[in-house]
Amino acid sequence: MAQKKYVYFYGVSKELTEGDSSMKAILGGKGANLAEMANANLPVPPGITISTEACAYYSKTGGKYAPEMEKQLKVQLKKLEVNMGKKLGDPKNPLLVSVRSGAAVSMPGMMDTVLNLGLTDKSVLGFVEQCGNERTGWDCYRRFIDMFGDVVMGPYTGLTHHDFEVELEAIKKKYRAKEDTDLTAEQLKELVGIYKKVYQNKVKKPFPQDPIEQLDLSIRAVFGSWGSERAEKYRQINKINGLLGTAVNICTMVFGNMGAKSGTGVAFTRDGGTGHSKPMGEYLIDAQGEDVVAGIRTPRHLDDMPDEESKVWKKVHTDLLKIMARLEKHYKYPQDVEFTVQEGKLFMLQTRNAKRTGLAGVRWAVEMATGKDFYTGESQPKILTQKEALMSLSGEDLEQLLFPIFDIIAEKKGKVITAGLPAGPGAAVGKIVFEAADAEAAVAKNADEKVVLVRHETSPEDVGGMWAAQGVLTSTGGMTSHAAVVARGWGKCCICGAGSLKIDYKEKTVTIAGKVYKQGDWISLNGSTGNVYAGQIPTQVSPVVSAVVDGKASAKKDPIYKMYEQVSKWSDANRTINVRTNADTPKDSKAARSFGAEGIGLCRTEHMFFEGDRIWAIREFILAEDQKARKAALAKLLKHQQKDFEGIFKAMDGLPVTVRLLDPPLHEFVPNSKKDQQEMAKRLGVPLKKVTERVQELHEFNPMLGHRGCRLSITFPELCVMQTQAIIGAACKVAKAKKPVKVLPEIMIPLIGTKAELDFLEKIVRTQAEAVIAKTGVKVNYLVGTMIEIPRAALTADEIAETAEFFSFGTNDLTQMTFGYSRDDIGTFLPDYLNEKILPSDPFQHLDQTGVGQLVKMGVKLGRETRPDLKCGICGEHGGDPESVKFCVKAGLNYVSCSPYRVPIARLAAAQAAIKG
Amino acid sequence: MAQKKYVYFYGVSKELTEGDSSMKAILGGKGANLAEMANANLPVPPGITISTEACAYYSKTGGKYAPEMEKQLKVQLKKLEVNMGKKLGDPKNPLLVSVRSGAAVSMPGMMDTVLNLGLTDKSVLGFVEQCGNERTGWDCYRRFIDMFGDVVMGPYTGLTHHDFEVELEAIKKKYRAKEDTDLTAEQLKELVGIYKKVYQNKVKKPFPQDPIEQLDLSIRAVFGSWGSERAEKYRQINKINGLLGTAVNICTMVFGNMGAKSGTGVAFTRDGGTGHSKPMGEYLIDAQGEDVVAGIRTPRHLDDMPDEESKVWKKVHTDLLKIMARLEKHYKYPQDVEFTVQEGKLFMLQTRNAKRTGLAGVRWAVEMATGKDFYTGESQPKILTQKEALMSLSGEDLEQLLFPIFDIIAEKKGKVITAGLPAGPGAAVGKIVFEAADAEAAVAKNADEKVVLVRHETSPEDVGGMWAAQGVLTSTGGMTSHAAVVARGWGKCCICGAGSLKIDYKEKTVTIAGKVYKQGDWISLNGSTGNVYAGQIPTQVSPVVSAVVDGKASAKKDPIYKMYEQVSKWSDANRTINVRTNADTPKDSKAARSFGAEGIGLCRTEHMFFEGDRIWAIREFILAEDQKARKAALAKLLKHQQKDFEGIFKAMDGLPVTVRLLDPPLHEFVPNSKKDQQEMAKRLGVPLKKVTERVQELHEFNPMLGHRGCRLSITFPELCVMQTQAIIGAACKVAKAKKPVKVLPEIMIPLIGTKAELDFLEKIVRTQAEAVIAKTGVKVNYLVGTMIEIPRAALTADEIAETAEFFSFGTNDLTQMTFGYSRDDIGTFLPDYLNEKILPSDPFQHLDQTGVGQLVKMGVKLGRETRPDLKCGICGEHGGDPESVKFCVKAGLNYVSCSPYRVPIARLAAAQAAIKG
Repeated sequence: MAQKKYVYFYGVSKELTEGDSSMKAILGGKGANLAEMANANLPVPPGITISTEACAYYSKTGGKYAPEMEKQLKVQLKKLEVNMGKKLGDPKNPLLVSVRSGAAVSMPGMMDTVLNLGLTDKSVLGFVEQCGNERTGWDCYRRFIDMFGDVVMGPYTGLTHHDFEVELEAIKKKYRAKEDTDLTAEQLKELVGIYKKVYQNKVKKPFPQDPIEQLDLSIRAVFGSWGSERAEKYRQINKINGLLGTAVNICTMVFGNMGAKSGTGVAFTRDGGTGHSKPMGEYLIDAQGEDVVAGIRTPRHLDDMPDEESKVWKKVHTDLLKIMARLEKHYKYPQDVEFTVQEGKLFMLQTRNAKRTGLAGVRWAVEMATGKDFYTGESQPKILTQKEALMSLSGEDLEQLLFPIFDIIAEKKGKVITAGLPAGPGAAVGKIVFEAADAEAAVAKNADEKVVLVRHETSPEDVGGMWAAQGVLTSTGGMTSHAAVVARGWGKCCICGAGSLKIDYKEKTVTIAGKVYKQGDWISLNGSTGNVYAGQIPTQVSPVVSAVVDGKASAKKDPIYKMYEQVSKWSDANRTINVRTNADTPKDSKAARSFGAEGIGLCRTEHMFFEGDRIWAIREFILAEDQKARKAALAKLLKHQQKDFEGIFKAMDGLPVTVRLLDPPLHEFVPNSKKDQQEMAKRLGVPLKKVTERVQELHEFNPMLGHRGCRLSITFPELCVMQTQAIIGAACKVAKAKKPVKVLPEIMIPLIGTKAELDFLEKIVRTQAEAVIAKTGVKVNYLVGTMIEIPRAALTADEIAETAEFFSFGTNDLTQMTFGYSRDDIGTFLPDYLNEKILPSDPFQHLDQTGVGQLVKMGVKLGRETRPDLKCGICGEHGGDPESVKFCVKAGLNYVSCSPYRVPIARLAAAQAAIKG
Repeated sequence: MAQKKYVYFYGVSKELTEGDSSMKAILGGKGANLAEMANANLPVPPGITISTEACAYYSKTGGKYAPEMEKQLKVQLKKLEVNMGKKLGDPKNPLLVSVRSGAAVSMPGMMDTVLNLGLTDKSVLGFVEQCGNERTGWDCYRRFIDMFGDVVMGPYTGLTHHDFEVELEAIKKKYRAKEDTDLTAEQLKELVGIYKKVYQNKVKKPFPQDPIEQLDLSIRAVFGSWGSERAEKYRQINKINGLLGTAVNICTMVFGNMGAKSGTGVAFTRDGGTGHSKPMGEYLIDAQGEDVVAGIRTPRHLDDMPDEESKVWKKVHTDLLKIMARLEKHYKYPQDVEFTVQEGKLFMLQTRNAKRTGLAGVRWAVEMATGKDFYTGESQPKILTQKEALMSLSGEDLEQLLFPIFDIIAEKKGKVITAGLPAGPGAAVGKIVFEAADAEAAVAKNADEKVVLVRHETSPEDVGGMWAAQGVLTSTGGMTSHAAVVARGWGKCCICGAGSLKIDYKEKTVTIAGKVYKQGDWISLNGSTGNVYAGQIPTQVSPVVSAVVDGKASAKKDPIYKMYEQVSKWSDANRTINVRTNADTPKDSKAARSFGAEGIGLCRTEHMFFEGDRIWAIREFILAEDQKARKAALAKLLKHQQKDFEGIFKAMDGLPVTVRLLDPPLHEFVPNSKKDQQEMAKRLGVPLKKVTERVQELHEFNPMLGHRGCRLSITFPELCVMQTQAIIGAACKVAKAKKPVKVLPEIMIPLIGTKAELDFLEKIVRTQAEAVIAKTGVKVNYLVGTMIEIPRAALTADEIAETAEFFSFGTNDLTQMTFGYSRDDIGTFLPDYLNEKILPSDPFQHLDQTGVGQLVKMGVKLGRETRPDLKCGICGEHGGDPESVKFCVKAGLNYVSCSPYRVPIARLAAAQAAIKG
């Protein structure tokens, strides 16, 4: 049986190199890229990579090496020694190596680097001879003891870098050395002696003089750090799953600390903040890698390199830029490199995809694909195809272009007082208010007033105040709670489920971690991260929104807008499914259309019931004793609803509009407070007792599973009658207007669980629609379909498709029922579920493809067995989540629908899914 | 193309007869049985049956005959006339027929019978000549006008039998006739003239003199009555679905009103009330069928027939008994027959399966299969096999043997004041109380006190009062609400969701339909029908329960118990799956075992938390600030829980016991009233604010979809730890007792939606269990499994079965989530859904095989793909519903589990499913 390969060689030559950049999963990012550079004949110091699979073995066995690994490591070490002509620990000609961790994904929190491994009391002498520099030799040794003690032994013994630093400072003081470089070889030798004592004091063992033992302990330290709390935490926060472990890279040392012709640095092929295409970087002369990071000396800018005293640097600079350009082109992504110059010779120690902001990401993508600087118009090499540019982007990148964001530096300085779920994007700054009415009043009084609405949760009654506020912060509710859904629909900042808020509505205060914030105190929300800050953090507005939504001519000239436009154009050219929007008003519809929406996938009618005096008509309906009285109440709503639909149809001229019939339970329309109930009784001229009794009657134990959706229209068919009249009435009216509008209404019946429900209501809808059409004499084509949001509907989709002309997957409710999770209550256990990795992510944010997705696929398949041309879409919140959109493309949906501000993101995701095939 | 056959002939000879009893769906029950009797050469007057498909055509087209039907009817009428040698409407030799409806299922509410059709002013003379009796001729004619006017024309014109009756009384008075039979031919002729005027007055047309028109109108009347409100209502109440329509039987008339050698009657082969095997029946001499029903004259008992003056009756009696015995043997079911004797010759007009009580059903089944009278020991013919006997029974039959029931006659006289869902079986009579505490107090004071607990809904706090009460009546909640589930578990009478109750807890009154009932007023509940009566209705106790549960020796001699035992034995001999029980206490476990339970399928642990002082420990747990304090609180519960399990394991010695870990949300354990919260604060020594805040924190919008089930143990693993210690601790203790108990514990983790949840808890369970086993040194085998009650669990059952050793389908929750119906809120729309036929039945009562059942089948299939020997059961309320049990057998489950008192019913259903194959 073939042995499992755990240890890989790289460097010296392409032939000897055993890996490449496709092997990140088992070599880690660092190891794979080192191999890739070696394959490209770039100057990489040769080395060995122990695979992530070896780490997995080590973790699983509680600290044992795979037996094959030990054998293979010996062989590869031998190969390295032979090729380098040196030997680990050799007193004459020692090989020194660095040991570096490297998982498939860059991941802080793990053990990073040990340099100069292989130095011992004996080998240091040989090393001195090798490099011809006594000072360098002892400097390397003392650095090694420091790093080894801190990084390898520290976690078990409490030994830290600080313990050594103290001694360094002492000796510098003793010999009046200003800089570390001022210490002589002799003094450094003395320091080595001191360091070894420091080591022995904490570790209770002498500093190991066997390089193989040094290596063994270092490898174990790297493997062990994979499971450290910090590393676990990082993976959890960053949703990094499914990795085997970390690889260990054992790299031949090169030395930047060999005098004026040596040095070390980091560089980026492009700016990760602004996205500017000019290479940038920093370096230190006569230093080893950790000095740059440690900030002991101020590093110099890459641009200064050609002007250094030693002439070698000019060539190093030219070589480095050439290599960086080659790497960027090779990886088709801006690179972040580490390099070391040893006596005038450049070595590449690492390359990886550079980190960046969303803006930089978009700029890189469009500039690398067009070969044009979007700010200056200058040309640059075309590195990417259009498709590659799109694939390099994420939804979050685009999001940063669409919403106001905090000034990055100001935010870093801000004080995070609590955090919640990032429910609505962008940043918001305002004075705290606790009541929707207060928010409205404040803005009514002074249009420039900025408030943030802070509540336990919001209800449809609060929409006015939510609109007036800069942002919304709630203590309960999840990503699809009322506050979240409404805010996202508006592109408004919202943080939900910040459980640590203790709100006192009476006192108008909120207590967070013991500190009391009063109404009027400033607060800042980052809706993209969920962080809440005390005070005001400056924000920047989005030129894209100014250009797209407000139509500002100046904003249309902004390069950011132009880049957005470029990405959108490419997205549309590549995607295969439509993107619609969830919008309930003409205003939202217009905004969505300007963001590229190709129709409305979900027009909720319930929000219309709250505007102005309409709520009184629906309350009259609720109190009515018989159908006659109910019809009379609904008659008052009819003309309002029709007017709403007219506006929406006009805004969506030529595009389909899916209108969902009334969905929420009736109790959402009645007031809960005694005072408001008294007002209701007075206004509707009924005894208070009647109101309170009816409110009590409407109470449900589990309203989500109660009398709502199609169930309402089955018990009160007059509701369905009125809404159909309003929809088709509006359609006919705008269709026969002077400037005729092309209307494509799709009437959607919610919460269907059985075919019989749909049949019952479809009959009513068709009867009413035909009557209106006959009366107005305008031929309007319309579809009747249903939401698939009840598991049973997906399971019986073949039956339901006999009646339904389209399906729209309501994945919010489908997720609720498939998991049995109330989206309003999930906050009590979701954090534990994410902590314990029981769920990979919030299923209301990212569609659960295994369970819920299975029902979606089943629904599409069964539905199309009955009706091959069945139009299928998704209108849950997942319609705006890139991963979920990609799933929708695979599942064969015809469109996704999302809130207006997420339309560009969905267009990108749809394009990416199509490109990926 | 072959014509569709709509019209069938029967009678004269086997060769001419075109149908048989297998064709009920299209000939109706009556038509099919007439054909069957004709095939058996029984004396059946020949006739024609128009099929139910013709009715369906008529209904669908809004009142048109299928064209083929009209043609075929003409042909068949001709055949009838030729064979009878008579002709419809012929003035010399007229053929008279009756027209009778007959659907596949016997169904009151439709047009029933028109006799003597074919009589006109002319043909009556020929008929007189034929029968040689002028009086008979005119008597038939006046009866025909009456029936035709009332039954055929009445629905359109308002003409009723009463309109004619008035005239009959008038003429009797005029001629001083005491009985109808005292009227002379001349007087009857006069009456015919009067009747025709009565007819013309209301109908505005003369009485039709064309027999074909008479026939046409009658057929239309029968077809039309199929869709009448009464008939629709009947079908709905009796859950009769899927029928095409009614057939129409056109039968050659025979005449029981031809003097002393003629007569008519009905008879039963066995007693439908007591089940006694002696034939019984009633007849009238010189009368037509409707006279028996109308009760004008007192009919005579069948036993008197041989003693009639005319000697022909002796032979008729012998012939009739022979025919009845033949029919019972042929149909393998007691028969209900109609017969007419025309001048000494016996004709069979109808036979059908007789109606019966549950007791009679059981007695028939066991006596017909054993050939033994269970009361007298006398022998009788063996007509059924054991399997046939079982198949003749229903769960409701057995139920009537198990629960106290009302005296039938007293109940008929009782006043139904409202109705709800029949949630717990049997009958209950008691004084109204509104608080559980009041119920307990009343019974504590006087053990013989009988109370009925009337509430909006019940909660776990109320169980003491529910136990003390005779029955429970609630205004909200469905078949699986708390009240329903608990009551059924005890075999206690319960009616839920009686929406018209207006309870005033303060005043201690309940208002029903405007009438106020006070605390202490008597009320009677029929838990098998849902009817609520004012006052006291006498009840009978069940000897089966006395024998089985109380072990009374005298009851064991009761024939009813013996019959129960016989059915149970046969059931066990035939069934292929196990029947377990849902029981939470040693007492329930014992009762269930004596009813034949083969283990516990669901032992809920939450009820144990309410007993005595335990609630304070769980409340302490809920208030605890950290895990240490939570563990301390749970430690107090441990010994109690362990003790409970010891008792249950002992009761179930040798049988498996599935224990479900804590399931309900924590808010169920904290009080809601201010007063109780104050008590809680005081008792636990914390500020009231802490209690109220925690209660508020525990509030959920949709608790059914909230923090419960396995989610609790994932956030509070110490709960799972404690419960495992209690279960395995108890198992080890009883296993190593002096008299060792064989324990087979199965630990069931509820509400699993993902494999990761199960893995997390399974690890804890196994670790704790092994620790207890190691500590006690007793080897106890246990299983760890899960409920499949979340749709996602069924969808990913293959993954879950990697960890789960058994599945138990929790079809209550699975139904809730698959449909999106809250079982506590379904009452608001379920009645409309049943009315509109959107649901065939309450899915919480009868498993929805299409949707929910699909998930069950998927779960079993996927689960066994991973683990072929996976044990699968069902522990939802459906486990006691016969139809659902049959589904479970088909789905391949290993067992069903139901409440103790439903175990015998489930055993029967399981046997029936096995027999049906």
